Amino acid sequence: MTHPSASIPEAPYADDSLGLHTDKYQINMTEVYWRDQIHQRKAVFEVYFRKIPFQNGYAVFAGLERVIRYLHDFRFSESDLAFLKEDGYSEEYLEYLASLRFTGTVRSMREGELVFANEPIMRIEAPLAEAQLIETAILNIINFQTLIATKASRIKQVVRDEVTMEFGSRRAQEMDAAIWGTRAAYIAGFDATSNVRAGKLFGIPSAGTHAHAMVQAYRDEYTAFRKYAECHQDCVFLVDTYDTLRSGVPTAIRVAKEMGDRINFRGIRLDSGDLAYLSKEARKLLDKAGFTDAKIYASNDLDEHTILNLKAQGAKIDVWGIGTKLITAYDQPALGAVYKLISIENENGEMTDTIKISSNPEKITTPGRKRVFRIINKLSGKSEGDYIALEREEPQDQDRLKMFHPVHTYIAKFVTNFEARELHHAIFEDGELVYEMPALKEIQTFVKENLDVLWEEYKRILNPAEYPVNLSQACWDNKMKLIGEIQEKVSRQVQS
Amino acid sequence: MTHPSASIPEAPYADDSLGLHTDKYQINMTEVYWRDQIHQRKAVFEVYFRKIPFQNGYAVFAGLERVIRYLHDFRFSESDLAFLKEDGYSEEYLEYLASLRFTGTVRSMREGELVFANEPIMRIEAPLAEAQLIETAILNIINFQTLIATKASRIKQVVRDEVTMEFGSRRAQEMDAAIWGTRAAYIAGFDATSNVRAGKLFGIPSAGTHAHAMVQAYRDEYTAFRKYAECHQDCVFLVDTYDTLRSGVPTAIRVAKEMGDRINFRGIRLDSGDLAYLSKEARKLLDKAGFTDAKIYASNDLDEHTILNLKAQGAKIDVWGIGTKLITAYDQPALGAVYKLISIENENGEMTDTIKISSNPEKITTPGRKRVFRIINKLSGKSEGDYIALEREEPQDQDRLKMFHPVHTYIAKFVTNFEARELHHAIFEDGELVYEMPALKEIQTFVKENLDVLWEEYKRILNPAEYPVNLSQACWDNKMKLIGEIQEKVSRQVQS
Repeated sequence: MTHPSASIPEAPYADDSLGLHTDKYQINMTEVYWRDQIHQRKAVFEVYFRKIPFQNGYAVFAGLERVIRYLHDFRFSESDLAFLKEDGYSEEYLEYLASLRFTGTVRSMREGELVFANEPIMRIEAPLAEAQLIETAILNIINFQTLIATKASRIKQVVRDEVTMEFGSRRAQEMDAAIWGTRAAYIAGFDATSNVRAGKLFGIPSAGTHAHAMVQAYRDEYTAFRKYAECHQDCVFLVDTYDTLRSGVPTAIRVAKEMGDRINFRGIRLDSGDLAYLSKEARKLLDKAGFTDAKIYASNDLDEHTILNLKAQGAKIDVWGIGTKLITAYDQPALGAVYKLISIENENGEMTDTIKISSNPEKITTPGRKRVFRIINKLSGKSEGDYIALEREEPQDQDRLKMFHPVHTYIAKFVTNFEARELHHAIFEDGELVYEMPALKEIQTFVKENLDVLWEEYKRILNPAEYPVNLSQACWDNKMKLIGEIQEKVSRQVQS
Repeated sequence: MTHPSASIPEAPYADDSLGLHTDKYQINMTEVYWRDQIHQRKAVFEVYFRKIPFQNGYAVFAGLERVIRYLHDFRFSESDLAFLKEDGYSEEYLEYLASLRFTGTVRSMREGELVFANEPIMRIEAPLAEAQLIETAILNIINFQTLIATKASRIKQVVRDEVTMEFGSRRAQEMDAAIWGTRAAYIAGFDATSNVRAGKLFGIPSAGTHAHAMVQAYRDEYTAFRKYAECHQDCVFLVDTYDTLRSGVPTAIRVAKEMGDRINFRGIRLDSGDLAYLSKEARKLLDKAGFTDAKIYASNDLDEHTILNLKAQGAKIDVWGIGTKLITAYDQPALGAVYKLISIENENGEMTDTIKISSNPEKITTPGRKRVFRIINKLSGKSEGDYIALEREEPQDQDRLKMFHPVHTYIAKFVTNFEARELHHAIFEDGELVYEMPALKEIQTFVKENLDVLWEEYKRILNPAEYPVNLSQACWDNKMKLIGEIQEKVSRQVQS
């Protein structure tokens, strides 16, 4: 297979579009709708997940910006259509697909909103065909970005105000994961990323000094650190190439002393070994040499659990570099958000609610167009829980709101003197973007503000209290009615 | 934040390139090399991982094609350079970066090669600056694609010749993971993907029929299945929207009977519930109705372990749809391949080997330019293990090859009558591509052939035997010599 000069075949993905970034069944179902002429009927889908990842007390929603751009640009390119033609789809159907644009209405939580299990994050109302085709990409985006933002937020709960940097590009699940993952981490409060492209694309501060390879290239630490210091003012020396305490740290100190005011000796970085022990010993050496302001950076498979333990051991670490465990959400690498049809126009032009039944009770959907409210207690300023109501309901108009548990329905509480803060915002109206995308820094601030509204008990990383997400009575009754109707129908079918 | 008509800000990532898809420290180290005028010195890096993922007996290498394209196109775009300028890098350095192309020599295992811990997958020899800058992207690509190919291969070991389809796009870690992950699964022997874009880009057969949403849209299964059958000849009906055995399967049978020869009733799909029980009952219903050729498709968080258990329970499943657990490598979502400097040109123009020491013995690198051979026993046709030798060695010239354990060095065996098959192939020579990229289907075949050379004991998914990966005596001696030198140097440093 070796040629003196092989030519590179044209990348098949050079002419790429996201139109086909969907499951084939979406294309096939859409063809059924189109042939049956029901493709223009209005359908309402909701995005939600059934379980908060990592057994955390909350999730941090991320992915909206990418979803907006995807919907805005949604279309099938020439090459997409050519591929489908080759795959056997009819000319007429392809002509229809060629003309498709997203013309629907989207209401969504904003990026950085805290979200809980079984509440709609996003609601898409669109002609059935359009709403069907976009499912896969929307879930692909929201599942990953929300997962990483949530993981990052857990780490922030442990790290508190210390500096955290995302270092995981080389272990990320391919390139999109590296850059969108670090954006999600930034939203959740991370301070910087090692990925320069993410810096360019999103304006996230990028950080990094040198690797073991540079020390090896110069063959000794002294030369390597000197050369670095002569080139860069801000210096963090990586001290574990040969022997951290006997060689790395003393050499860093030596170079810092020699260079004096010509550099900002920011500190040292530990990337292996016993971080608790090494950081404490390194701290002593630095302090003894007068570098009490020099920081200790640490990395090496860190996550919220190792950080918590390092802190318990009194590790002297000031800056946390977090890679693999964050960027892949190592302990739970997938979020299971789903996209479910909850209402659809019938042959008479009326909207009718739909349900999916399952032998797993948690997989039964909640029918009908809904709104989600965060019920803020005006006295404490803290949230009492979320309240899911049908479209027409106005919980703010009630003096006394009954909130009951969606499984153990006899567990209920009444809330008074509250503000019902609606969580969904208008994003698209009839295909037109009506939402001004906030800057990334604003989203980061928004997360902080949202967390302030939550009691501490929901925020601890181990065994958090369960945050109440309740259905309104009307919403509950509507669900029970539909379950009854389906059971009736199946039972009649079996008898017949 | 709602506007009557918000304009979409230009996507900052529209003018994107992969030049900056790297860690910032690579840019900073490269500046040091360039300023010190050692950036043109020849450096040799190797890619390898220290542990096979999933405690599997082997890994399947994937990612080469994407690496080739990345290196072929490697450069900093106008906007990359503009960003770096804003970030404070000097004009002269940026001018240098602007002119950079990849001019190095790459030898690599081919995609689909079986690879083991601590053996070089790929070797990059290039001017130090170039070799340094490309590290992050190369690892990002190889780590993910190799991980998924390996996971898919484990699943294939359990499924054997039954049909497997990759269904995970919606749970993948963003879009690149969805498409490159399904490509990796295909390499390892999967038959199809649900992702249409992967079908278009890579020629992987794409598959899928309909979802619960279509049944809900028509509000009853009969109408939905009928409509589908009137539109599509090949029919697989999803039967678990309301009640699998009482409604779904009987309705599928009814429609299949009504439509007769007008459709190919391929079978039914189960996506929830007890797959063992439901598949056995559904099989009875289908057989009783005369549809003995109809297949049962199953999906729902499947992986090699659930499949093994379903088979043990006698589940009647013919086609396996595998999503989340495969596409995210759920039980171990990261592979830790590293990129280590093993040799570098010194000031006199000679190549000198380098090493990185660590308090973790497995993190000590193996210095020197190496080749990897698979030692095939000519009598059995099976592999005796892999043999890592220094560049100049020719194991094929030896009558009797001594292979010894790299940790327990006293464990050794002698092999005679063998073929030493070299695993590295020339990919780039001085920046020129010299490798003809095989078609995807050929890579899939190549994996099968490679697996045939391995004894079964290395291929079982639980507690596989440890495949021998041995160093040559010369390679071992070279490593010991460098460790001794470094220890000597550190010790002198401490005394001084």
